[in-house]
Amino acid sequence: MEGKMKVAVMTGARQMEWTEKDIPKPGKGELLVKLEYVGVCGSDLHFYEAGRLGNWVPDGPLVLGHEPGGVVEEVGPEVTGFKKGDRIAIEPGVPCGTCDMCRKGLYNLCPDMSFMAIPNERDGVFSEYCVHPANMCFKLPDNVDTMEGALIEPLAVGFHAAKVAEAEIGQSAVVLGCGCIGLVTIMVLKARGIEEIYAVDMIGKRLEKAKEVGAKEAFNAKDVNIEEFVRTLPGGGVDLVFETAGAEFTTRQSAKLIKNGGRVVLVGMCAEPEIVVDIGSLSAKEGDLKTIFRYRNLYPAAIKAVSEGTIPLKSIVSHIFEFKDVIEGVAYNVDNKSDVIKAVVKY
Amino acid sequence: MEGKMKVAVMTGARQMEWTEKDIPKPGKGELLVKLEYVGVCGSDLHFYEAGRLGNWVPDGPLVLGHEPGGVVEEVGPEVTGFKKGDRIAIEPGVPCGTCDMCRKGLYNLCPDMSFMAIPNERDGVFSEYCVHPANMCFKLPDNVDTMEGALIEPLAVGFHAAKVAEAEIGQSAVVLGCGCIGLVTIMVLKARGIEEIYAVDMIGKRLEKAKEVGAKEAFNAKDVNIEEFVRTLPGGGVDLVFETAGAEFTTRQSAKLIKNGGRVVLVGMCAEPEIVVDIGSLSAKEGDLKTIFRYRNLYPAAIKAVSEGTIPLKSIVSHIFEFKDVIEGVAYNVDNKSDVIKAVVKY
Amino acid sequence: MEGKMKVAVMTGARQMEWTEKDIPKPGKGELLVKLEYVGVCGSDLHFYEAGRLGNWVPDGPLVLGHEPGGVVEEVGPEVTGFKKGDRIAIEPGVPCGTCDMCRKGLYNLCPDMSFMAIPNERDGVFSEYCVHPANMCFKLPDNVDTMEGALIEPLAVGFHAAKVAEAEIGQSAVVLGCGCIGLVTIMVLKARGIEEIYAVDMIGKRLEKAKEVGAKEAFNAKDVNIEEFVRTLPGGGVDLVFETAGAEFTTRQSAKLIKNGGRVVLVGMCAEPEIVVDIGSLSAKEGDLKTIFRYRNLYPAAIKAVSEGTIPLKSIVSHIFEFKDVIEGVAYNVDNKSDVIKAVVKY
Amino acid sequence: MEGKMKVAVMTGARQMEWTEKDIPKPGKGELLVKLEYVGVCGSDLHFYEAGRLGNWVPDGPLVLGHEPGGVVEEVGPEVTGFKKGDRIAIEPGVPCGTCDMCRKGLYNLCPDMSFMAIPNERDGVFSEYCVHPANMCFKLPDNVDTMEGALIEPLAVGFHAAKVAEAEIGQSAVVLGCGCIGLVTIMVLKARGIEEIYAVDMIGKRLEKAKEVGAKEAFNAKDVNIEEFVRTLPGGGVDLVFETAGAEFTTRQSAKLIKNGGRVVLVGMCAEPEIVVDIGSLSAKEGDLKTIFRYRNLYPAAIKAVSEGTIPLKSIVSHIFEFKDVIEGVAYNVDNKSDVIKAVVKY
Repeated sequence: MEGKMKVAVMTGARQMEWTEKDIPKPGKGELLVKLEYVGVCGSDLHFYEAGRLGNWVPDGPLVLGHEPGGVVEEVGPEVTGFKKGDRIAIEPGVPCGTCDMCRKGLYNLCPDMSFMAIPNERDGVFSEYCVHPANMCFKLPDNVDTMEGALIEPLAVGFHAAKVAEAEIGQSAVVLGCGCIGLVTIMVLKARGIEEIYAVDMIGKRLEKAKEVGAKEAFNAKDVNIEEFVRTLPGGGVDLVFETAGAEFTTRQSAKLIKNGGRVVLVGMCAEPEIVVDIGSLSAKEGDLKTIFRYRNLYPAAIKAVSEGTIPLKSIVSHIFEFKDVIEGVAYNVDNKSDVIKAVVKY
Repeated sequence: MEGKMKVAVMTGARQMEWTEKDIPKPGKGELLVKLEYVGVCGSDLHFYEAGRLGNWVPDGPLVLGHEPGGVVEEVGPEVTGFKKGDRIAIEPGVPCGTCDMCRKGLYNLCPDMSFMAIPNERDGVFSEYCVHPANMCFKLPDNVDTMEGALIEPLAVGFHAAKVAEAEIGQSAVVLGCGCIGLVTIMVLKARGIEEIYAVDMIGKRLEKAKEVGAKEAFNAKDVNIEEFVRTLPGGGVDLVFETAGAEFTTRQSAKLIKNGGRVVLVGMCAEPEIVVDIGSLSAKEGDLKTIFRYRNLYPAAIKAVSEGTIPLKSIVSHIFEFKDVIEGVAYNVDNKSDVIKAVVKY
Repeated sequence: MEGKMKVAVMTGARQMEWTEKDIPKPGKGELLVKLEYVGVCGSDLHFYEAGRLGNWVPDGPLVLGHEPGGVVEEVGPEVTGFKKGDRIAIEPGVPCGTCDMCRKGLYNLCPDMSFMAIPNERDGVFSEYCVHPANMCFKLPDNVDTMEGALIEPLAVGFHAAKVAEAEIGQSAVVLGCGCIGLVTIMVLKARGIEEIYAVDMIGKRLEKAKEVGAKEAFNAKDVNIEEFVRTLPGGGVDLVFETAGAEFTTRQSAKLIKNGGRVVLVGMCAEPEIVVDIGSLSAKEGDLKTIFRYRNLYPAAIKAVSEGTIPLKSIVSHIFEFKDVIEGVAYNVDNKSDVIKAVVKY
Repeated sequence: MEGKMKVAVMTGARQMEWTEKDIPKPGKGELLVKLEYVGVCGSDLHFYEAGRLGNWVPDGPLVLGHEPGGVVEEVGPEVTGFKKGDRIAIEPGVPCGTCDMCRKGLYNLCPDMSFMAIPNERDGVFSEYCVHPANMCFKLPDNVDTMEGALIEPLAVGFHAAKVAEAEIGQSAVVLGCGCIGLVTIMVLKARGIEEIYAVDMIGKRLEKAKEVGAKEAFNAKDVNIEEFVRTLPGGGVDLVFETAGAEFTTRQSAKLIKNGGRVVLVGMCAEPEIVVDIGSLSAKEGDLKTIFRYRNLYPAAIKAVSEGTIPLKSIVSHIFEFKDVIEGVAYNVDNKSDVIKAVVKY
């Protein structure tokens, strides 16, 4: 396919502008995809707000957006199993496929990962088209639309968190933070049969949503001290704690909330690397503190779960922006964090 | 509590009769329990039909029944956490608590296990009362009744099977046999988020029930060749196979149904120990063949799941007999296997 | 057995004195044991030095010592498998055996644990005799003496640490701290086939011992920056880090030393519960931070390994005190920490 | 590199002949390797003897040999980390790298695997040179020679078997069959700290070797009934059974040898797929029967272990043939199975 496409690029802190690029050609094993929906992630907002994300500092314009759903426009050479018109979710990271980590299936830890919207890795998808390796593209069943396809990305984080936690029926959990990632974590826990989920946030709208998608209780941290609350539970704590807020306070708090033999999974990333943690509390309870970095091997299961109706994924979307308004949309999101639960861009 | 109680004893093949015994006194750490519901298990029926169960041969009268739900009548010395009137489910096996297996938490494998209705272990509960160690009794929440309490026992088998299989959202499963154990296995799989469940049996009534409790498809083995069916699935098989029929044919078949890396869990017990298995098929797919022996540490989770509404446990009950009719009820069950899905005795 | 026995009790910070007590009678399921060797643990020294250990504050005289090896003197009622004269290692904690944690085999997390030399739990073994449940006593093979029997206790910590780390042949490890626990951790790693072990300490004598028992390299932290060193390894870190020093500095450092997908096991206990940890580093590498609390179910394996010659356990002993000199011995140990690697008391 | 190379091809049952082919050119990401040693595997012998191996039937000449050690002769485009002269072990299977199984790290189960000496996959290495993807080639440390490099292939099977068994210090094991695979399994178990290993075979020479490489006892099945023997052990069986003989008798026997909670790993492949197994015994003990198909991700660990001296790998070699005599060597091996423990071909 010949032609030009519109691309929104970030050029600095709080700076985005429109540009035009050639529509790329799909190489061997690749697909050309016309985007239909792209989710707006917290990390997109961080980049926009600060012009950087932790140690990732762009040395030029950066295309944001890494939660893509779209339609196959053109099939590159040597691709099997796809045809023009297929609706797909795209896993945004492309690992090398041959290193030690990749061979072991831990491809999210590949040192040569090429992930969308990361400086010096690969462009994000705030653009009309993208090319991507077919083996990181996943066809959507008839009853899953491309907006859901876009949301598979954050959902995969929730899947990974629950899997790493080895969440099992009968357990209890605290989810700290009810933004997009907190909400999908609650959804996945519920789909795995965990009903005793205590959600914590400070924004009323999010707490309502947490209840709606399955939390047994949703506590406003301004009113309820979760540390005191869990002491009233059998064993004086919960089996599992998911920190999804990426805040120092909740990270520090997490180890205090488990019961003997419990597990903490740190899902959020804090601004500062060095955090005070209650190690004494963790050790006395022989607790584990686990971390996750993105996800791996979970798109198929996540798509299947949405198709089977066990995950009410769309219900997290609070705002839809048109692609032509993406620059204003990102700005709105940054300036109204407590209003926006999850925004998606419609192409 | 003083007095006599009615007890139904098996005295030989197809022989049961009424007797009277002293109501037992709860010893240290024990409860006296008034039974309210007891489930009738396939192994009770085997004992009744053949006068024995495999290598277990009674050397005198045997009291059957090992799926008890009841009410605490009297609390023995040094028991904490229970009071008269508490409604409970009773875990029927009493392990020694001190051996190597018990210390490791594998108490179902304790060589000194004292299990209800097993010759030379402990009496079953086709009697008005029983005494039992309090730490193997589990209080029922308000919304779980004692009929459900009785059914926790088979449900625990389903929990153990699914846990041993490490069943995860996104997987596919075949359940061979849709009797009580097949049905609870389906329920637990579904509660863990597995929706792609193919149930197989030869009795229409059971297949209907399998669909009702969550199977995606329920195949009558007379009409559908499950081996051919699974070859049409991605990977040419399923992730998990649960053999619950205890039949030679289905045990032999089980390994043929998995895809690469799949797992078979043998839940049913065949009459003969030595069975032909398709080891070549298993090896070529690097499959595992796992077995379970009863269950362990699962009553709390099973009760919680019923209370939380994720397991429609009662729906498996097809017949309720009064305790005064238990002898006729057991006989009916043996003579009408294809009619009875699950019978319980009401006291 | 009638009579009196000598007991050394701690009565305050840096205060120990001799007293006499009745030789206890073994109750049901118990053994009376004549002590032959008792190891001196860091926690004994903490208690002696500070009169307390973290939150554990004695409200009266406390008998220290919880690493016992001895000989059966008398066998209590209902004990099988033991006779007078049997040489044994004693596991110092007595769990309740019936709670949720015990049933699951996680008895080290039993909330009703009765552990030697812990206030309000049970007396330590700086006394001529003790009684103990037979199921927590383990017979020693002919080629394992009771000094080794005493040392099984710290060795079990090393076994637990390596097991929790899932240490596998081919991996690399850093062991921070080369006191008794660091050394047994090195021994167990080596016995599991891990050869690439980097030991770190600041005391020359310990570093020599670390090399002797199997470390590939032993670095003095005064001379070598371990963080810089591991960056030169493939992947820029090691698979496993064991923090055994219980120091804030090394705990903070631990997460920096792993490679992608690595694991930290915190074995030592810091004086302060809240510690700064490099969570950012841990998350970026999807690392786990695990903790252990004592050990469970490992005495049999530890004894077997010593008997089979895979663990040169005795080589950690640097000082032997006579029981009559235990008070002076404990004081010496506290005042000469860098000289004493491991002291044992001989009865 | 231009020129011709000598290749030995199998053209039918008990038929091998010499031919000449062009030395292949290394493509993108590939190495050209000059072979130095190639091990002779049981499957090579099966192919030679029967002209086929189970369902694998060559439709033309087949080059056998899939245990290669050699030296890099030429480095293809886009390869990093290798140079001419590097001594390497070659992992003989080349997975697709992009399918579901590969992404998960289970690349040995890749449906598009291209494995040496398998019809319609890729040529074996009974030839002077081969080309192979660099990421399936592993450099050998200075103290590991290319004969050991060749033997890494069978050693990886032993590593996989022990890993799948989750073999831990303190456990007991029976190894059925003391051919090459039985012997490497014993070596790996020993390297993981398992000392209580009972080896069984019917050939004296192999039993001697089993003792030499670490079996505690080596039983001739003609003289000792292993089923009776294990009943005298604590728990009446062992923790782990490794079937490496690929015989119906030993496969059937395997489940009888475990104790409660034990595991069987089927390493050998039987001629017939359907085998009688003692499922009753397995179920009553809640045993697992696991299978392995080749290995995955284990070359680095296996090479490291040989380099570190924990695996006396070379000691299994009983016969060395010159490449010019490979045809006679294979014939000798087939005709003298009880004499040859392990043969290697020297180039």
